[in-house]
Amino acid sequence: MKFLRFGAMGQEKPGALDAEGTIRDLSSIVSDFTPETISKEALSAIAAMDLSGFPTVAPDVRIGACVGGARNFYAVGLNYARHAKETGNPEPAEPVLFSKSTSSICGPNDPIILPKGSEKTDWEVELGVIIGAACEHVSEDTALDHVAGYCVINDVSERTYQIERGGQWIKGKSSRNFGPIGPWLVTADEVGDPQNLGLCLSVNGESFQNSSTSDMIFPVAKIISYMSQFMRLMPGDVIATGTPEGVGLGLTPPKFLRDGDVVELTVAGLGSQRQTVVAYPG
Amino acid sequence: MKFLRFGAMGQEKPGALDAEGTIRDLSSIVSDFTPETISKEALSAIAAMDLSGFPTVAPDVRIGACVGGARNFYAVGLNYARHAKETGNPEPAEPVLFSKSTSSICGPNDPIILPKGSEKTDWEVELGVIIGAACEHVSEDTALDHVAGYCVINDVSERTYQIERGGQWIKGKSSRNFGPIGPWLVTADEVGDPQNLGLCLSVNGESFQNSSTSDMIFPVAKIISYMSQFMRLMPGDVIATGTPEGVGLGLTPPKFLRDGDVVELTVAGLGSQRQTVVAYPG
Repeated sequence: MKFLRFGAMGQEKPGALDAEGTIRDLSSIVSDFTPETISKEALSAIAAMDLSGFPTVAPDVRIGACVGGARNFYAVGLNYARHAKETGNPEPAEPVLFSKSTSSICGPNDPIILPKGSEKTDWEVELGVIIGAACEHVSEDTALDHVAGYCVINDVSERTYQIERGGQWIKGKSSRNFGPIGPWLVTADEVGDPQNLGLCLSVNGESFQNSSTSDMIFPVAKIISYMSQFMRLMPGDVIATGTPEGVGLGLTPPKFLRDGDVVELTVAGLGSQRQTVVAYPG
Repeated sequence: MKFLRFGAMGQEKPGALDAEGTIRDLSSIVSDFTPETISKEALSAIAAMDLSGFPTVAPDVRIGACVGGARNFYAVGLNYARHAKETGNPEPAEPVLFSKSTSSICGPNDPIILPKGSEKTDWEVELGVIIGAACEHVSEDTALDHVAGYCVINDVSERTYQIERGGQWIKGKSSRNFGPIGPWLVTADEVGDPQNLGLCLSVNGESFQNSSTSDMIFPVAKIISYMSQFMRLMPGDVIATGTPEGVGLGLTPPKFLRDGDVVELTVAGLGSQRQTVVAYPG
């Protein structure tokens, strides 16, 4: 099942795609998809219902992030071998974790807003994981049982802020609209093996990233098991699992986003995002 | 005004201290103190009310974190000169930012749970800031206008996870109960100047940290202004503003927390926390 949220930013309603790909409005049975309502059990119960009785929604409606009110937006760095190499870093011995501000979260087709004065805003197509059940010290064997679903994430990054401003990466990962999530939360049962999904990203129609989650250094089950040693993962938590090679920072010469650029990205089976880059307003 | 949350973990109700120091139950007028309800305006409206009509609460009730459902738990590293020195780091040229998982948040007197196998769990008394109004690119002059209130935070830290496990600090900052917050959110008008507050922390009655926020390298107004260049700060966001010297890592030889230790910490005017250290359960 593909779940989504639609409507104006901050006022999104919950919905799902029916068998014909039409959006159905689920707001009569669930107020929103948030940490409180996004458990695996709750989503399964909805997935078992006949959607034909729910109101249809116009296809041109704005799509929001597929989870609302997230309380943690985690990310894994350098998780594809060729990406680690292009950034000049060694392949990590264990997963590199950082976080993005939850205030960076936006819809999949909202504009990428260049931070004020930014010269080095970059793209990163990633497989996103939405946690559906709390876990701590979970084994790799059972880790995927705690996944509600998967989604597309663009882990938009400002490289000057990330690398040249001292300390930790969060500074370069957190600006407004730096976290497009969606269009859909695709339930884990529909995705099957998360380690065999193609990912691609283009800018102005030119392909820059084209890889597969089969190239991850640490697969999703390992990431969840590993993270759960350090923190309790909770329903609604979002994990961006790393980007493959082909980011702007890794090109010779480096290439970064400019006002008017159009970024398009897809993870196979999880849908596509399309963002227009805009200058910082005012 | 001093606001707080009381009751069992996950079921906290909102309250306030009246002029006699008695807890008053505010759940008839606000469901909880969360990002949705913790705006400066909302707190001011409550502060203007006569509390004598609200039910009293037994003084031995469990106190929860003074904000519920936080969506970001930011922290500033190395923000006191003598603390930077004791950790072997230079004084930073600009604020060092990192984050803690929001799932680490707990009440001020809940136990500190040693992570499984932890050898290096450490303490850090800090001044906490609760944001009360959204801001982005705010000036230092107006930064404090966006503060709902202040609180005590123990930024509990596992030094092996933070420093020796690769990558970013979040791994050592995020375990369950690593974020005691409270007892109170003391409104900014009652605190006045946040740069003149004593902070102290003892373990088993022995004093280890004893300083003042006047020794911060970057004061609160600078921290908020600086952070707001990189991310939108939102109501309910928590910022731990750094710890003064005297952490266990900085002692010769280093000293870390053990099962049965009792940690007590205070920030002047903001109340005290008292935590018993316990081994990882099971």
